[in-house]
Amino acid sequence: MRKPRIVVLGAGYGGLMTVTRLQKQFSKDQAEIVLINKNDYHYETTWLHEASAGTLHHDKVRYDIKDVIDGHKVNFMQATVEDIKTDAKKVITDNGEVEYDYLVIALGAVSETFGIKGLHEHAFMIANINSARQLREHLEYQFATYKNEEDKKDERLTIVVGGAGFTGIEFLGELGNRIPELCKEYDVDFQKVRIVCVEAAPMILPGFDPELVKYARAKLEKKGVEFRIGTPLKEATENSVIISKGEDEVEEIQAGTIVWAAGVRGNPVIEKAEIENMRARVKVGKDLRAPGHDNIFVIGDCSLMINEEIDRPYPPTAQIAMQQGETCARNITALIKGNEALEQFKPDIKGTVCSLGEDDAIGLVYGKKLMGTKASFMKKVVDNRALYMVGGAGLVMKKGKFKFF
Amino acid sequence: MRKPRIVVLGAGYGGLMTVTRLQKQFSKDQAEIVLINKNDYHYETTWLHEASAGTLHHDKVRYDIKDVIDGHKVNFMQATVEDIKTDAKKVITDNGEVEYDYLVIALGAVSETFGIKGLHEHAFMIANINSARQLREHLEYQFATYKNEEDKKDERLTIVVGGAGFTGIEFLGELGNRIPELCKEYDVDFQKVRIVCVEAAPMILPGFDPELVKYARAKLEKKGVEFRIGTPLKEATENSVIISKGEDEVEEIQAGTIVWAAGVRGNPVIEKAEIENMRARVKVGKDLRAPGHDNIFVIGDCSLMINEEIDRPYPPTAQIAMQQGETCARNITALIKGNEALEQFKPDIKGTVCSLGEDDAIGLVYGKKLMGTKASFMKKVVDNRALYMVGGAGLVMKKGKFKFF
Repeated sequence: MRKPRIVVLGAGYGGLMTVTRLQKQFSKDQAEIVLINKNDYHYETTWLHEASAGTLHHDKVRYDIKDVIDGHKVNFMQATVEDIKTDAKKVITDNGEVEYDYLVIALGAVSETFGIKGLHEHAFMIANINSARQLREHLEYQFATYKNEEDKKDERLTIVVGGAGFTGIEFLGELGNRIPELCKEYDVDFQKVRIVCVEAAPMILPGFDPELVKYARAKLEKKGVEFRIGTPLKEATENSVIISKGEDEVEEIQAGTIVWAAGVRGNPVIEKAEIENMRARVKVGKDLRAPGHDNIFVIGDCSLMINEEIDRPYPPTAQIAMQQGETCARNITALIKGNEALEQFKPDIKGTVCSLGEDDAIGLVYGKKLMGTKASFMKKVVDNRALYMVGGAGLVMKKGKFKFF
Repeated sequence: MRKPRIVVLGAGYGGLMTVTRLQKQFSKDQAEIVLINKNDYHYETTWLHEASAGTLHHDKVRYDIKDVIDGHKVNFMQATVEDIKTDAKKVITDNGEVEYDYLVIALGAVSETFGIKGLHEHAFMIANINSARQLREHLEYQFATYKNEEDKKDERLTIVVGGAGFTGIEFLGELGNRIPELCKEYDVDFQKVRIVCVEAAPMILPGFDPELVKYARAKLEKKGVEFRIGTPLKEATENSVIISKGEDEVEEIQAGTIVWAAGVRGNPVIEKAEIENMRARVKVGKDLRAPGHDNIFVIGDCSLMINEEIDRPYPPTAQIAMQQGETCARNITALIKGNEALEQFKPDIKGTVCSLGEDDAIGLVYGKKLMGTKASFMKKVVDNRALYMVGGAGLVMKKGKFKFF
């Protein structure tokens, strides 16, 4: 009898948790495990705002996949997934085709621009290592150019961040630390720099506790951030954004840097594969399988699950992706070992912490409100825990965050 | 009797040597010394190729002027010189006017583009701290953008350096060290990078010993530099250079970075002031005074002196500028103290070393040919000596180069 082949797509939080759990369940003879990922490294999506601002080097934000997988049991293939043929049980990549018996789709999210004109062309995204490095270097280049140009364009030092959700706010917090450093590095007057956050919703960090939100806003304003709340961004041009002003008017803000941090959607491969989806996210069953596909699991940002208590989807977080990875590995193990009763996934939300820079944050942890250094400490604990879950203590020692105060 | 006022324009090698020597000659009551400089720091022009490539941080290439002048005796004024009214004995700056009894013009050189179309707009120069930082950041941004763009433009990684004189060759040497680092930092294949040096003259480093030139060329070619010698650069566009090819043809090289390192001229203020000059350089007398101006000394890159042995001008070097500063200070002292016999300046050329990166160089020192690590060692000795001459052992300890091998 041929041993079953499990193919995991994506080495993000969900995919790596699945693989590291699966490799403990099977001997080499019991199952073949294949992990397919675009890069030969995993990166911490939740730390990208730091690499993008330049406050943390991108090599601290990624690690080699081979450092956490068991090379004897897992076959790693570096390739970009292009399509999935569910009838033929095949994955199409830019590096060849791979057949599967069980498939785990953990391809993560991509930026969503909601069709806003010019964003795709002119805005920087906080999406991956490559985009983070480009944003970091773009910021530096603006400062260097400003200092060297004969006719100084002050708008070169204006940074517009679209979106006051989690990513937007965390990025603004890092900018608060980074801008003074850039001013020093390039002999630029801090007063010349302008940071504007544009958000269509009527508040920042929608859904977060109002007291914590108030704290976050006050701290970021103190670091120089101007908030334009309840203000939809209508268009981005090469060096400006056009935003709503009242009912009918618009305002143009000249800006040397435009960052779009206002939304994500699932991976387009899911739409291409014609698996039932909503904006490339699959509304999975409680056992994490795609509707109508008994051998396909979808986890992480590509999956959609409803939080029945509030009748809204769970947010796409690393915490949930990792928990799904564990359940997914157990359910595949059950299927292969002939156990029909699959585990029902239920997120166990331990808390949420939103950083506001190196030494500040807000958070709700086990129902308790935290702000300032306590929250910042918890954020680092959360970050280190993610490393521990995938790669153990060794990975925490190598890539962990220990600069507490 | 009013005490005489000596005004020194420029805090480069020549200006700082003059001021640090003058401040030892006079008490506060004997003379007033004013130093005017655009920045509140001095920078090592001869190290700018390192800051531009990104192999040495620009803060290692500059130091505060107040660290080397005696604040009790010298009045430092941060201002940009705009004109000199020799009849009225006045210097016009963007920060007010200053009268002088004795004037030292040590304003250094600016880049010379020889009217080549597009260079001023599209080429980066290795001219000062601001331009060096911009070039460094531009290079990084090209690598970051290349890695993040969907349709890879390989020409983004092409660097064209115009000029195979001292600055061009030293910059190419640094690129040889820096490019592999950038490839690693941005996960870019080294084979995609192209470095082209375009030089109109029939050889690199004209005037240098042929054996040393051959060594330099071979070493740079090994680091990946392509030489186009005897090839005039005709035009620079936003993303290409147009060069001669044979008698009548031209060739266009697409390039993400264009650096112009092929020539300098004196400071335009000299032309504006209508002091007799040749391309903003003043052919000074042997006592370093401008013709027809008994109270104006011109030193460094703004001065022009003929080497009678070969009937050609001495090159604009830090070595000569510093020696001129010493003579200039002695001659001003003589004039003020009523001694009519001024010293005749004669350069004492101890040698010339051209670096080829961190650990390689070629040089002629006291008539002896050097190459490789020995020459590289001598280069660092020369660099440290310049610091010592202006700021003593303390400055050498603070800013010196000690990473010998």
